[in-house]
Amino acid sequence: MQMRIGSVDRKAWRARLHEVIFEADTRPGKAFDVVLIVCILLSVLVVMLDSVEEVSKNYHGLLLVCEWTFTILFTIEYGFRLYSVRKPLKYATSFFGIVDLLAILPTYLSPLLQGTEAFVVVRLLRTLRIFRVLRLVQYAGEARLLLHALRASGRKLLVFITAVLTVVTIFGSVMYVVEGRVNPEFSSIPKSVYWAIVTLTTVGYGDIAPKSGFGQALSSLIMVLGYGVIAIPTGVVTVEIMRDERARARMTSNTQSCPSCAADSHDNDAVHCKLCGTKL
Amino acid sequence: MQMRIGSVDRKAWRARLHEVIFEADTRPGKAFDVVLIVCILLSVLVVMLDSVEEVSKNYHGLLLVCEWTFTILFTIEYGFRLYSVRKPLKYATSFFGIVDLLAILPTYLSPLLQGTEAFVVVRLLRTLRIFRVLRLVQYAGEARLLLHALRASGRKLLVFITAVLTVVTIFGSVMYVVEGRVNPEFSSIPKSVYWAIVTLTTVGYGDIAPKSGFGQALSSLIMVLGYGVIAIPTGVVTVEIMRDERARARMTSNTQSCPSCAADSHDNDAVHCKLCGTKL
Amino acid sequence: MQMRIGSVDRKAWRARLHEVIFEADTRPGKAFDVVLIVCILLSVLVVMLDSVEEVSKNYHGLLLVCEWTFTILFTIEYGFRLYSVRKPLKYATSFFGIVDLLAILPTYLSPLLQGTEAFVVVRLLRTLRIFRVLRLVQYAGEARLLLHALRASGRKLLVFITAVLTVVTIFGSVMYVVEGRVNPEFSSIPKSVYWAIVTLTTVGYGDIAPKSGFGQALSSLIMVLGYGVIAIPTGVVTVEIMRDERARARMTSNTQSCPSCAADSHDNDAVHCKLCGTKL
Amino acid sequence: MQMRIGSVDRKAWRARLHEVIFEADTRPGKAFDVVLIVCILLSVLVVMLDSVEEVSKNYHGLLLVCEWTFTILFTIEYGFRLYSVRKPLKYATSFFGIVDLLAILPTYLSPLLQGTEAFVVVRLLRTLRIFRVLRLVQYAGEARLLLHALRASGRKLLVFITAVLTVVTIFGSVMYVVEGRVNPEFSSIPKSVYWAIVTLTTVGYGDIAPKSGFGQALSSLIMVLGYGVIAIPTGVVTVEIMRDERARARMTSNTQSCPSCAADSHDNDAVHCKLCGTKL
Repeated sequence: MQMRIGSVDRKAWRARLHEVIFEADTRPGKAFDVVLIVCILLSVLVVMLDSVEEVSKNYHGLLLVCEWTFTILFTIEYGFRLYSVRKPLKYATSFFGIVDLLAILPTYLSPLLQGTEAFVVVRLLRTLRIFRVLRLVQYAGEARLLLHALRASGRKLLVFITAVLTVVTIFGSVMYVVEGRVNPEFSSIPKSVYWAIVTLTTVGYGDIAPKSGFGQALSSLIMVLGYGVIAIPTGVVTVEIMRDERARARMTSNTQSCPSCAADSHDNDAVHCKLCGTKL
Repeated sequence: MQMRIGSVDRKAWRARLHEVIFEADTRPGKAFDVVLIVCILLSVLVVMLDSVEEVSKNYHGLLLVCEWTFTILFTIEYGFRLYSVRKPLKYATSFFGIVDLLAILPTYLSPLLQGTEAFVVVRLLRTLRIFRVLRLVQYAGEARLLLHALRASGRKLLVFITAVLTVVTIFGSVMYVVEGRVNPEFSSIPKSVYWAIVTLTTVGYGDIAPKSGFGQALSSLIMVLGYGVIAIPTGVVTVEIMRDERARARMTSNTQSCPSCAADSHDNDAVHCKLCGTKL
Repeated sequence: MQMRIGSVDRKAWRARLHEVIFEADTRPGKAFDVVLIVCILLSVLVVMLDSVEEVSKNYHGLLLVCEWTFTILFTIEYGFRLYSVRKPLKYATSFFGIVDLLAILPTYLSPLLQGTEAFVVVRLLRTLRIFRVLRLVQYAGEARLLLHALRASGRKLLVFITAVLTVVTIFGSVMYVVEGRVNPEFSSIPKSVYWAIVTLTTVGYGDIAPKSGFGQALSSLIMVLGYGVIAIPTGVVTVEIMRDERARARMTSNTQSCPSCAADSHDNDAVHCKLCGTKL
Repeated sequence: MQMRIGSVDRKAWRARLHEVIFEADTRPGKAFDVVLIVCILLSVLVVMLDSVEEVSKNYHGLLLVCEWTFTILFTIEYGFRLYSVRKPLKYATSFFGIVDLLAILPTYLSPLLQGTEAFVVVRLLRTLRIFRVLRLVQYAGEARLLLHALRASGRKLLVFITAVLTVVTIFGSVMYVVEGRVNPEFSSIPKSVYWAIVTLTTVGYGDIAPKSGFGQALSSLIMVLGYGVIAIPTGVVTVEIMRDERARARMTSNTQSCPSCAADSHDNDAVHCKLCGTKL
């Protein structure tokens, strides 16, 4: 890599590197991506296993080695990405550029912050490495359609979420007054709002549950509300996906127009105009 | 404000005030709304924080000052609203007029009702201030579409909710008989109905859970029912939103206008004006 | 009522009675229905209150009187229904005829079965009175559309429920083997199947929960399955409601056909054929 | 069966057997299927009952006899299936061939593996017999449509599930850092991820629940996410079922056939054959 190569060669090599690293159309490009995903998944697994006390007790050393190996590999890969891309700064500040950096930083920072107090912070930094998983999204094409449907219905969903948050705040406060006296679980409004969210979303842990009759009646109301109101985001997203599908279908249907009467929307297998019979 | 201004000027000032307070099309109008929303959110936060014992212990004084400041600000705003509107009584008795009043009343009433017994009532009144949050709805435009879809499917949803309430009452009563003998958690029909609601809506706290084999079998039935029956409100609302979207699409789809009678909203395949027969 | 009235008069009176009791088009018919619904709801409330120990202790006598009053009223009403209808046997064996009878029987049977052992059975009979609530369905017209959509998608929903039951049986059995050894909550297959239903339907009481790592991994699988699979009944019912709505829309659109080119599906406000311009 | 029969007769008998066992169009074929389903359900019931300690204590002998009877019956049936089918190997390696074998194997293996240690394994093998239930799917015709809709939306659902798994991994890790210090329930990342799945899918056992304020705030976020995100698979599947239904409707909608070239599936508004131009 330190040898002298002509500017043209270097350019070609860079383009080739870019092809392998950033694209997945060629064979080496595909292979690189598959290996990368496997590495990401393995490294996440290592972090997860290291957090389990029984495993960490016996294999902490091995897991540490694995973790550092993966981190160094990802660092080299990050370097190559920066090198092969035409505008490194733009990549570095893009979403995946930042995620790539965040995926390797925590491991490097962990030895620097080895004070007693900072121990927990290190754990936090280490878990940030899991952001690597986010890169998996890069590889799924269908995701775009779903994301588009979500974005198109974004404003409606925002209104919905605002309404939901308003409702849980009010219900939470009312439950704080109703249950707070007799039930220590509803000791503050924030806690009651948390309970309202747990209930409206039909999660229902049961760590906080109403005990008074009136509280239970009120809870029933919010439950039925939450049960019925789920219909709204579902309806919004369904309609949006339907529109996307229809738009795609229309685009792939043909643009044949009758030369005689100019009627369109003919079937793909149509030979004659369905209105006037002229040959298409 | 106490100086003499001509009736025209006063009228203009009033109209200007109305524009700023009630509308959000002008720059000051928008700024006012944003400031108002921030104030509402902050005041709600203050009430919520004051209910947390650890916070209240140390900062009760500060929070009380904040609360009174916000209340006075909202009172002034309420006065301006009454003044700037042409028919104050109509505003005062409108939904948001009442909400605006309810949002400031509790704080004023809290010192009057300072008896030992009334303490809890004061808390209730204070929480009513959270109704301010409801005003947030005023600012979202998309909400109308969702509300319309909900209202259009209102009768169907009412039938659905009635059916759900009937089902939970019957299931609750049956469970009271089946489980009541062996399980003190099902000690009365209302409690059993509460359990049935918790189960049908798939919330499932677990504070009340069947223990006998037959009770668990019956619960399984209501769970599967609740899991499947959610399809109904979802279907109803989805169809309603779809119809709304389609109606909107139809209105904006075709810009054909009859050259003779200027009628529009022709079908896409129309050749002649559907009203006067002129060729389009 | 014991006086002699001509056969014509009796017939007319009977028809009138039928109109009042069975129909809701006339004023007295509507009033009768409203009063009846209120009575049904009140009588259900009485039964529910009587099951709450604190209430029953003090007001058992009063509630008993109410219950008997309602029962006698409903018995008289049942008699009138039998009398006013042309084919009493057909009514008595119809769904609502049976429900009407079941709604009054339990109270009459309660004193007959007053043995010590039978006490619980009496409670069961009393709760059956709640079937009165079912009669409420009679009064909702929109219900038919929803029921039709449900029935039309009935076969698909049946397949879905069968699939769900198969899945929970298999998952329950596997969990029995996986968790049964270490977790007494999974002590038998039926109990494990019950847990699988609680989990798949996302109810999640938490009375039975996996403890081993493998058990939790398996549970995660069934949870994600249950979370995603809810899409199927929702999709089926949505499509069915949509088709119903469309069918209804088509029927109420017009049957205008162009006298010259026989084109149809004209708008309701169309005056000229949209294809050839002939006056409709 | 051991008597000499002509090759033609044997062939006919085999074909007849195949008709009875594999098909359900003839009367004996239907009867055979119904009896088989009942036997499968009963044998599953036997296994389930035997796992309940109270039942097993008293009736273990009887249940064992039942189990062996069913197993022998199913073995004979399996033999007939192998015999009657033209390509036995193809059947034996097909999905239902394997399921049929797995449904009888566990009982035969149970006495062979009677060591003390292997006891649990035997239980595992025995529960595998429940795979018989899977055969029930064979008999439902409507299932195909639903399966097709699921398969058609498979890629989108896969993207969705991948996104969900990514989200729960990240949320779980963050919660491990946030709650792990103060809450022993979040003692490792895998456990926290399990909690995240329980929460996102709105199951909410409550065996693991956040206790710190920040943890509860974060949980609220994942709950609202899970509550809203369910809209995506629902929308995807709904659109897919709709398309299937429409495709089916189009095929059966119009019976117009070209008098000249006999082509069909013309649009409803077609005037000329779209293939040859003849007037319809």
